[in-house]
Amino acid sequence: MSDTLDLPTRQLVPQPDIDLRRIGSHPDHWYPLAWSKELKPGKTYAAQFAGEPIVLIRPKDGGAVFALEDRCAHRQVPLSKGVVEGCAVRCCYHGWTYDASGKCIDVPYLGKDKLPNGVRAYPCREQDGLILIWPGDPKAITELGPLGSAHDKAFKTRRFGKQVRCHYTFMHENLMDMNHQFLHRRQMGKIAPRYLGRRKGEDWIEVDYSFARTEGSQPLGEALILSSRRGASKVSQDLMTIRTEYPYQTLRIWTSGDEPVMHLWIAYTPVDAEQKFNRTFGLLSVRRPKIPGLLDLAWPALVWFTERIFAEDREIVEMEQRAHDAQGSDWNVEVFPPIRDLRALLAANGQPMTGLAKSV
Amino acid sequence: MSDTLDLPTRQLVPQPDIDLRRIGSHPDHWYPLAWSKELKPGKTYAAQFAGEPIVLIRPKDGGAVFALEDRCAHRQVPLSKGVVEGCAVRCCYHGWTYDASGKCIDVPYLGKDKLPNGVRAYPCREQDGLILIWPGDPKAITELGPLGSAHDKAFKTRRFGKQVRCHYTFMHENLMDMNHQFLHRRQMGKIAPRYLGRRKGEDWIEVDYSFARTEGSQPLGEALILSSRRGASKVSQDLMTIRTEYPYQTLRIWTSGDEPVMHLWIAYTPVDAEQKFNRTFGLLSVRRPKIPGLLDLAWPALVWFTERIFAEDREIVEMEQRAHDAQGSDWNVEVFPPIRDLRALLAANGQPMTGLAKSV
Amino acid sequence: MSDTLDLPTRQLVPQPDIDLRRIGSHPDHWYPLAWSKELKPGKTYAAQFAGEPIVLIRPKDGGAVFALEDRCAHRQVPLSKGVVEGCAVRCCYHGWTYDASGKCIDVPYLGKDKLPNGVRAYPCREQDGLILIWPGDPKAITELGPLGSAHDKAFKTRRFGKQVRCHYTFMHENLMDMNHQFLHRRQMGKIAPRYLGRRKGEDWIEVDYSFARTEGSQPLGEALILSSRRGASKVSQDLMTIRTEYPYQTLRIWTSGDEPVMHLWIAYTPVDAEQKFNRTFGLLSVRRPKIPGLLDLAWPALVWFTERIFAEDREIVEMEQRAHDAQGSDWNVEVFPPIRDLRALLAANGQPMTGLAKSV
Repeated sequence: MSDTLDLPTRQLVPQPDIDLRRIGSHPDHWYPLAWSKELKPGKTYAAQFAGEPIVLIRPKDGGAVFALEDRCAHRQVPLSKGVVEGCAVRCCYHGWTYDASGKCIDVPYLGKDKLPNGVRAYPCREQDGLILIWPGDPKAITELGPLGSAHDKAFKTRRFGKQVRCHYTFMHENLMDMNHQFLHRRQMGKIAPRYLGRRKGEDWIEVDYSFARTEGSQPLGEALILSSRRGASKVSQDLMTIRTEYPYQTLRIWTSGDEPVMHLWIAYTPVDAEQKFNRTFGLLSVRRPKIPGLLDLAWPALVWFTERIFAEDREIVEMEQRAHDAQGSDWNVEVFPPIRDLRALLAANGQPMTGLAKSV
Repeated sequence: MSDTLDLPTRQLVPQPDIDLRRIGSHPDHWYPLAWSKELKPGKTYAAQFAGEPIVLIRPKDGGAVFALEDRCAHRQVPLSKGVVEGCAVRCCYHGWTYDASGKCIDVPYLGKDKLPNGVRAYPCREQDGLILIWPGDPKAITELGPLGSAHDKAFKTRRFGKQVRCHYTFMHENLMDMNHQFLHRRQMGKIAPRYLGRRKGEDWIEVDYSFARTEGSQPLGEALILSSRRGASKVSQDLMTIRTEYPYQTLRIWTSGDEPVMHLWIAYTPVDAEQKFNRTFGLLSVRRPKIPGLLDLAWPALVWFTERIFAEDREIVEMEQRAHDAQGSDWNVEVFPPIRDLRALLAANGQPMTGLAKSV
Repeated sequence: MSDTLDLPTRQLVPQPDIDLRRIGSHPDHWYPLAWSKELKPGKTYAAQFAGEPIVLIRPKDGGAVFALEDRCAHRQVPLSKGVVEGCAVRCCYHGWTYDASGKCIDVPYLGKDKLPNGVRAYPCREQDGLILIWPGDPKAITELGPLGSAHDKAFKTRRFGKQVRCHYTFMHENLMDMNHQFLHRRQMGKIAPRYLGRRKGEDWIEVDYSFARTEGSQPLGEALILSSRRGASKVSQDLMTIRTEYPYQTLRIWTSGDEPVMHLWIAYTPVDAEQKFNRTFGLLSVRRPKIPGLLDLAWPALVWFTERIFAEDREIVEMEQRAHDAQGSDWNVEVFPPIRDLRALLAANGQPMTGLAKSV
C-alpha cells in the first residue's frame, strides 16, 4: 500500500513561454512530398504541405514534374483527380485546364479571352529519387543541395519512410537524443552511448556520441552497418554525429578514417494544417564494403533491422503527440543540454502556425 | 522545373457575403424521409431532418403512417426503439406511450390525470412510394403536388437514392450545370451540351440544353432513355430542361413532341444539424415504348447506367464538401450565369442554420 | 394523416439550473480501476480516472500493487509501456525510473544528485478481486469498507462490468428506477414493480420495491437468484432495496428473513475528462442454497441472464448519453420522486468538471 501524501509534482513544473508543438515548419525550404517511383508518367499524385493540398504531375512525354495547388479554381475539387494532357492537367469535373505555371488555359464552354484566374504553382525539383517542392516565398528560393550521400556511388542507399502521427519536432528530438537506446533494447542489446560534445550555429546543431556495448551480442543489422571497415578496432572508437540543419537531420557513423560508413539524411514534411502528422523521408546510405556483393547479400537483414528500429521510434513519438494532445501544452522536463539547444533552434527557425484559412 | 514566381492567385478572389453552404433548407416544405417499403406494418423507422430526430410509425392495422419527434419526453431515448401498439408507440425504457398527435396517453406508474406533456408530431404524407413530412410551421402547410411523373402509368419509374455527404446545394448545382458531362466521359462518351437559355421566377429556375455527340458511340443506358420515340431524328434535336423549384429538382428530356421521354424528380433532405449530409430521393420516370416489355427487358442496363452516373456525381459533390470543410468558406468562382442565378435562388429561399439546440 | 397543429411542447420544458451530466465524480472516494486478475506480477496496467492517466503496477515478488500517474515526467509517454524492476518502474524511452511513491530514483545519464521531480502517486488498495485508488486529496483519505457481500463465504460472487459510453449518473438513475422493467420484458416477463417508499440522508438514498409477476413464467436466471430460500411464499413478499451511497450503488433482494438472498455492489468509475464514459465494476453476490453445488451448477444460466440484462441497460444508457450530446443539455422530465431525490443527491455530492488541463 502506497499512501504517499505528496501533492502532485506537476504543479511545480515551469511552463515554457512557447509551445514547441505549435511552431510550424518554416516554408522557405525544400520539402519532399513523394518518392519519384510513386508518380508514373501521365499521372498525378495528391500530397499536402501543412494542410495545403498540392498535386504533383508528371507529363507522359518525359517532361519535368510540376506542382500545383490541388484544387480547381472553379469548384475546389482536387486536380489530382483530373486528366494529364501534355504539360497540363484538366479538372475531372467541368474540364477547366491548367498549365505548369498554374495558368488556366481552357474552359470548354468559355471563350479563350474570358479565361479566369488560375491556381498557385510551386517550385518543384526531382533529385535522388525524391520529389521536393518549395512551399514558401518564391523570391526566397535557394538551390537544393545534396541529400546526404544518396548521390555517391560509394554508398548503397535505402529509401524508407511513412506517415507518422506527430509534430515534426518530436522526430528531431528522438533522433538527436541517443539516451533513448533503452527503447531499442530488444534490437540493439545493451548499448551505453557516451555524449562527447556539441557544436552549433544559427540554424544547425551537431552532437557527437561514442558507443560501447556493455552487454549482449551485436545484432546482425548493426554489424552490417558498422563492421565493414572497422577490422579489429575497439567498439569505443565508433563515433556518431547527429546534426539538425534546419529543417533536415543527418546521422553519420565513423568507425575509422575520415569518411563515414553510414550517412542518414532525413526530412519530416508536415502534412496537416495543425502539423500533427509528418511524412518522414529517409535516405539511409551505407558505404559499400571492399568485397563486392556482400552488402547486397546482407541487405534484407539490414532492411529488417532498420524497419524494426523505425517502428519503435514511430510508436513512441506518436505516444508523445497523444500526451501533448491530452495535456494541451508541452509539459516536457528536458535535462539534456543538447536537446534544450535543439528545442531553441527549432523554435527560432520555425514560424507560428496560422492555419489553412489565414495562410491563403 | 517550374519556378513560377507568381503570388497565390486566391488572394484576389472576392469572397461572397453569404456562404451558401451555411444556408439551411427551409422547413416549410414537404421533405421525403424514407421509401414506403422501408417501413413495415407495426414497425418504426428512425430518420432525421436537419439534426431533428424523427420517428415514422406504421400501425399494424393498415392505419396511416405518422411521424413524431424521435425521443421520449421522459429520458430522451429514441421512440423508434419502442413498441407499436395500435396507433400509438410505447417507449422501450419506462413504457411512456404517445398517440399519433404526440400526446402522452400512458405512463404505467402514473395516474391518467397526471400525464406529462407529449412530443412533437409532424404532418406526414405517403405518396408514390415515398413517406414525406412537413418539418416547418404547421400553419404554413400546403398541399403536396405530384412527384414528377411517378403517378403516370405511361411511365415506368425507378426509385434510387442514398445518403450523400454534402450540403444539398452542391446537388442542385451539380445537376443544373450540364457542362459537367466531362465527369461522365467514361459512361456517356464525348457529349457537347449546348446551353440554350433560361427562365426564372422567385422560387424556380429552368435551364434548357441541346445535346450533340461529338465522338464515341451512344451507350446502351442512354439509348434506352432517349431512343424510344426519336426514330431517325437528329441528335441535336434532343432537348433537356433542368428545373429547380425550391426545394426540389426535375430534369426532363424531349426527343420530339410535347411529352418528355424522361422525367426525373429529385429531393435532397438534409440529415444532420449542419446539413453536411443529405439523403437523396430520386424518382426516374421513363416513358414506356410502344413495344410492351421492351423497357422491362432493358431495365437492368438502365439501372446499371444510372447507378454509375449517380456514383460519379456523388463522389464529386462529396469532394466539394470536403474542400469547403478544409477551406472554411465558399471559394468557388462561378462563371456560368445559370448557376449564379441558381445560387442566388437557393440563398434567398433557404434560411440561416440555427443548429439543433436553438431551433427547439 | 396526422396534421397536428400544436407547437413543439419542448419549449415549455423548464430547464434545470444545473446540468447533472456536467457534474464530475467527486475524487475523494475509492474508485476501482481494474480487476485483480487483469494485472499479473511484474506487469503494468494502463487505466484512467476522469481523463487522468494512471498506471497500476504489480511487483514480481508479491509486493503490493501501487499506482502512479501514467506518464513519465520527462517526455510524458506512458509509464505503463515501461519495465517493472522490483518495486519500481523504468520508462521505456530514456529509462527514467520511479519508485512506488512516484519519486524519480534513476536517470541513466544523470548523477544521482541531479535527479528531477517525479510523478504523482495515488493511494491504492486491493480488495475482493478489485484494485482501487483514491484520486482525490490524500489528506481526506478514509478507510475502504466492505464491497457488498463479496467477502462473505455464505455468498458466491460474480464479477462483471465493462466500459459504458455514458455519464455515471445515467447508471445510478437506471438502476434505481425499477419502473424500467419494461426494458427487460424479453428477459423477465411481465413484472409489476410496486414502489413502497424511500429513506435518505446527506450522501445516500434508499428505495424499496415489491414485485408481482402479472404475466408469463419466471425465467431460470431469476429463479436462481430468488427461489433458493423462498419455498412456497408469495411473490409479492419479495422485497428489493436499491441504495445509492455516494459514489456506489447496492441492490439487495430479500425473500424472507433478515438476510438478503442477493446483494449487488456496483461502482461507476469515470474514464475520460468529460466523464462521458464510465467503467462499471459489479460484484453480484448470491446466497448459497442449502444444497451444496446447486448454485455452481446453475451458474452459467445466471451468468447468461445477468449479461443479457446488463447488455440491455448498457444499450439504453448509451442512447441517453447520445441524446444529451445532441441536445447539449439535460432535457429530462422526471416525474418519479425517488429519482428526483437521487438527482439532487448526485449533484450535491459531485463536483464541477474542470477538465484535465485545469485540474493539474
